[in-house]
Formats: sequence, C-alpha cells, structure tokens
Amino acid sequence: MSTSSIHILGFAGSLRRASVNRGLLRAASEKLPANVTLEIYDLSDIPLYNGDVEASGTPDSVQDFKQRIAAADALLIATPEYNYSIPGVLKNAIDWASRPPASSPLSGKPAAILGAGGGYGTVRAQTHLRNVLAAVNVQVLTRPEVLIQNARDKFNADGNLLDAESRQRVWDLIDALAVWTRRLRTGEGTLIPAIAEKN
Amino acid sequence: MSTSSIHILGFAGSLRRASVNRGLLRAASEKLPANVTLEIYDLSDIPLYNGDVEASGTPDSVQDFKQRIAAADALLIATPEYNYSIPGVLKNAIDWASRPPASSPLSGKPAAILGAGGGYGTVRAQTHLRNVLAAVNVQVLTRPEVLIQNARDKFNADGNLLDAESRQRVWDLIDALAVWTRRLRTGEGTLIPAIAEKN
Amino acid sequence: MSTSSIHILGFAGSLRRASVNRGLLRAASEKLPANVTLEIYDLSDIPLYNGDVEASGTPDSVQDFKQRIAAADALLIATPEYNYSIPGVLKNAIDWASRPPASSPLSGKPAAILGAGGGYGTVRAQTHLRNVLAAVNVQVLTRPEVLIQNARDKFNADGNLLDAESRQRVWDLIDALAVWTRRLRTGEGTLIPAIAEKN
Amino acid sequence: MSTSSIHILGFAGSLRRASVNRGLLRAASEKLPANVTLEIYDLSDIPLYNGDVEASGTPDSVQDFKQRIAAADALLIATPEYNYSIPGVLKNAIDWASRPPASSPLSGKPAAILGAGGGYGTVRAQTHLRNVLAAVNVQVLTRPEVLIQNARDKFNADGNLLDAESRQRVWDLIDALAVWTRRLRTGEGTLIPAIAEKN
Repeated sequence: MSTSSIHILGFAGSLRRASVNRGLLRAASEKLPANVTLEIYDLSDIPLYNGDVEASGTPDSVQDFKQRIAAADALLIATPEYNYSIPGVLKNAIDWASRPPASSPLSGKPAAILGAGGGYGTVRAQTHLRNVLAAVNVQVLTRPEVLIQNARDKFNADGNLLDAESRQRVWDLIDALAVWTRRLRTGEGTLIPAIAEKN
Repeated sequence: MSTSSIHILGFAGSLRRASVNRGLLRAASEKLPANVTLEIYDLSDIPLYNGDVEASGTPDSVQDFKQRIAAADALLIATPEYNYSIPGVLKNAIDWASRPPASSPLSGKPAAILGAGGGYGTVRAQTHLRNVLAAVNVQVLTRPEVLIQNARDKFNADGNLLDAESRQRVWDLIDALAVWTRRLRTGEGTLIPAIAEKN
Repeated sequence: MSTSSIHILGFAGSLRRASVNRGLLRAASEKLPANVTLEIYDLSDIPLYNGDVEASGTPDSVQDFKQRIAAADALLIATPEYNYSIPGVLKNAIDWASRPPASSPLSGKPAAILGAGGGYGTVRAQTHLRNVLAAVNVQVLTRPEVLIQNARDKFNADGNLLDAESRQRVWDLIDALAVWTRRLRTGEGTLIPAIAEKN
Repeated sequence: MSTSSIHILGFAGSLRRASVNRGLLRAASEKLPANVTLEIYDLSDIPLYNGDVEASGTPDSVQDFKQRIAAADALLIATPEYNYSIPGVLKNAIDWASRPPASSPLSGKPAAILGAGGGYGTVRAQTHLRNVLAAVNVQVLTRPEVLIQNARDKFNADGNLLDAESRQRVWDLIDALAVWTRRLRTGEGTLIPAIAEKN
C-alpha cells in the first residue's frame, strides 16, 4: 500500500560540531522509513533576536529558516539540557521563527523531540520544550520518548551514536513521527496503536 | 456529509457545587456540535490515592471512572488554578486513572483543557496540566486556548457562565475537539485549518 | 558556639506504609544535627479539598496540620513522582494548608525538598514542587539536591534506605536546611559557603 | 542604624532599545533604597553559546559579564515572555555565565525577577526563569511578584514606565531584594516580615 511522502526538517539546540544532539539527527538519517526524507538544518547563522533589527527587516538567515520550516511536513528537534531548560540557542531560533511578518510556519506542524545528556537525559529540557512548542501550536508526539542518559558512554568523540539500543529508539521515534504526520496531514493510517506507550 | 459520533467525558478539578470550572462544562453542554455527546463526571467519589488500598483492590469508584474514560472518545478537562498548579483533587484522579491493572484508559486519548480563574486565568495550572497529560500519553489540543480571566465577573453565584464571548470560546473549543478527535481516531476531516491559531 | 534550636516538620507525598519517600524522612531522623528536631507528619487524615466542606468549617485534621506547620521552623518535603508531577495527595495537602481563615502558615517558611524514584529520580516532580512552593511563599533550599534514582536498589521492602551514599546525601540536606533556616530566621551563621553547589 | 551597601546588577531579556523590560530596570533605578546601587548591564554583546568557540577561549564580552555578576551582591532580572518562556537571548546569557572555567559567579547569588507583558504579564516566563535560576543556584525572592499586565497601557513609546502603581511595585521589589540580600549575605535585618505575601 502506498503512503504519502514526508519531508522532515531536523535541527539541534547545540552549535558544537561534535555535539551528541547533532549526532542524534545523523543517527535518525541513517535508517529512514519508506517515503521519508530528513533535512538537517544548522542554526549557526540565526542571530540573536533583536526587535530593532527585525524592524529593519528579517535577516536572510531567519527568512531561510522559516522557509525551510514552511516547506517541511514535520519537525524533529534534538535538544541538550542546559541549566534545567533548553539552550538559549534553540529558544532563540524558535523565537525568530514564530515572528511576523507572515503567519508562523510553525503553527500546526507535527513534530517529535529527543535529547541526549547526562544522568537525567534532558528530561527537564524536554518538559520546557513541550511548553514552548505548545505556545507556537506545534503538535508534538507524546510517545515514544527518547531521553538518552549518560550520553558519554553511547556516543564517540565525534558525536556519533554507537549504542545499538539508543539507535533503535531514535528510529522508532522517526517511524512514529511519520505515522503521526500522515495522520494529521492526510488522515492516512491508524494512529493510536502506532504511538502506544512503550516506556 | 455524515460524520462519526463522538462521546466526550468531561470532568472538573473542583468539588464545589457552584464551581466556575464545573460551570464551564455545563456551558459546553449547552451547544454541542452534531453527533457529539458530553457526559459530565463528578470526581467527588474518587478517594485519595493510597498504594496499600490499591494492593487490596482498586476502589469501585475508581473502576467506574476508568471505565467511563475507556468508553469515551475524548476528554474535556476543566481546571481551576490552586497555588500555580492544578488542584490536588484533579491530579489525584489522574493518578488513579493511570494505574494498573489493565492498561491506562488515558493512553492515546484526544483531549481539550480549559479553565476559569482570577487575573491570570489558570495559565500556570494549564501548563502543569499539559505536562501531566503528556506523561499519560493524552493528545491535547493546542488551540484554541480557553483561559477565562476574572471569572467573578463572568459567572453567576451558581457558577453558570453568563459572559457571551466566553461562552462562544467554550463552544469553539468543543468544535475543535470534535475535529481533532475524528482526525486522530478515524482520519476524517481536515485538521490543520480547524485548529489554526486564534489567540 | 551555641546555635538556636530548629524544629522541622517533615511529610511525604505517599500514603503507602512502605513508601520509599516516607523512608527518606526516617533516614533523615537517624542523624540530626545538634539542636535540630524532626517531626514526621502523616498526611493520611487530610481529606480531599472541597470548598463546600471548607465553608462549613476547616476539618480538624487540616487544622492540626496547619498548626504543626505554624509551630515548625522549617519544612522537609519528600515527594514521589507520579505522572511527571507531584502526587495529588501532596498537592491536596498543600492546597488545604494555604487556605484561609488565618494567614497561611506556609508563607515565609524555609524548606528543603527531596525524592526517590525510578530512572529520573523524581526530577520532574521536584520541578513542579518548586513551582508550587514559590506560589505559597516557601523559601526552598536550592542545594544540595537529593534525587535518588533507581530507588528499588537502595531501599529494602519496608522502605528503609540502606544505600550509604544516599543516606549521607539526606544528612547533608538536613545540615544545609538547618543553616538555611537559622540564617533566614535569626541571621546566624554564614550562608553562602554552606549551600555551595555540590552536584 | 547603618546597613551594609548593596550593589545590584540588572539585566533584561530584550535587546530592543525601547523595550518595556529595559524600562523596568530604569524605573527601578529612579528610587533606590539607601546604600543600594543598581548597574544596568546590556546583553547585546553576548554571542550565541557555542562550545567550539568556548574551547578556544571564553569571549571577552562573556568574561566581562561574568566579572560584573561576580562583583555584584545581587541580581535583578527583567524578562519579557516569548512563546510561554524566557527569550532565547536571556537564556543564552545565563548559559554562558554558568560555564567554566572558574566557578559560576551565579551560584549563591540573591536575586529578584520581574517582567512586563501582555494579558498574562509574563507569568509563564517567570515560572521558567525560576526553574533556570534554581538550576544555577541563584536564591530568588518569592515575594513580592512583579508581573505587569497590559504593558502597552503603562509604558510610553520609549519604554519608560509611567503607571504610578506599577512604579511603586518595582520599588517595593527593590526594597525587598535589599532586605533579602543583606540577610543572606551578612545576617542583617529581619527577613520574614519584609517578604511577607502581598499579592
């Protein structure tokens, strides 16, 4: 049976090249479901939000980011936890994306979140991120949750995810995101069993 | 064009007879969309959660509550704000409903939340409620948001909602919940425009 | 050098006899600093909050709880995590304690929080609890944090804390609470080094 | 009776020149208590956090910010609410300030928070900010709370606070912060009545 194609835009809340959260996005890209594409977007060029700058025109990098969001069917957001919340870098990108002119490309977009961190696995960051995404009317998948604890033991020095179980969890998340997105956008498929609680 | 029927279970986080949040549920029931029914459930008989009590059998009132949730297509939860969060009464009912034996009837259920309060309109309670509902895998509508500020001016002494604009907001929420529920359960309808950001 | 005496009221968010969070309070009582007493209060008799009941008089059990809070110099609150938040039982007790008549005995009270749970060690519950305690103007210690992960391995079947490192963390928390309380109430001692970040 | 001098470092989460939250800091500076100074710090020069940049040396602007925090006795943080949380700009500055090398100058610092916004007065942003400040071991005053609703009506186009009642609330907050800071740092004064619940 054929399914509609899904284009996912992924971005991470860390600008560091060897970031484990960037590594989560790369791991996702290594085993995508049929008819699913994943574009990894780098937030490095998004400047700090400044209303005075905005008043003289939305920066090109922000316009590009907003267009990439608008063109995507769904979002995949990988977040580290800094100080019990999401990084300023990630919040700043969402702040820009939600701004006029033109309606927010975030509104109504299906999404999944994930994160890798220390002993608590970004659990507080993901809570704040869900609050923020509710604010911008993003429809976030509730299950499965991907909270990679003790990342130091599961990634190599380049930020590549080596741990087999964690890799499978990332792939399960993308599978669920594809189901969720198709259901929300076209009504295809059967939702509830696909996102049944696993953890 | 015909649509599938939707049965909503509504409950409020206040046990007071003249509660304005109970009043929100009554207001909802006064103008339901076609093929939508709303059953208002009273949490008064749900005891405080106690694992020792549970070990000797789930109380009848809790079993009844869980069966009513299982039989519903969607949930409507009205919450006051007590001390910047949801009432203990509401959290306690959710705690019981999420417990074994048998899988949680909450998991995968579509829902809408609303609240009436003072100057901040239960905004902090709704944030915590979204966190809790994400925990139990409930799919909560993100828009419209119904946060009735300065409830004293909008309800009468019996807790009936008199303010016309607020009544319309409650009805818009039920309309959106019906669309959301049909989309998630059967794939009917068109989701994104229906829940477009309004506030 | 002599120090003022400190009386701490401790309570846990679980009513189960063998609760590990009740066990945390017992562990605290086993090695109290000089001139510190700890009274463990059982929330079992606090009924569900109901404004109609309150209108005909605050229940005796609630009056007793409020008096015990008023008589204490500080609070020690042990919380399990249920559904990413504090138990309804704990929230309900705080809701009652914060109610008129008479000013809230909670307001301005120094406190420490702790919890034992599964893989995330009650980290989300403690976040919500801090939000709630800020609402009722309780001055909560920020460090040390006591989040006991994988409680199953550290307590026995009666809920007694056996793990030596965890026991020491509980005692360090009580030491810090005594310093914090003396500073806030009488100005004694030196605060900043005593609560220096440890984790 | 003489009191020790208190130097407060104030900063706002908006970079816009005419920001109402910058205006709150200016309003605070217009009526400082005896022996209290307020230095307003502009976050414009703090770059986005990037671990690779940090690895080659903490930027000068961040070093300067950390030194100003270290030199202050207390912090005053004014936050807008963007997307139900604090701005990325503010979170980013806190993220940098909390980083090694050298211990975090934030740890153990007394602070007060305030905000001006729309209909909900930054109430969600302040909740997240309290979570973040608990993470970095900042001792945040719980009362009074300053949440300026409907800022458009209370500030002029330059972001200056004109509303008399709001101005008084800001000044009351600074008074309370001075009491709180003296108590925490030197044990002076009497704490509890000064921060008694007012709202």
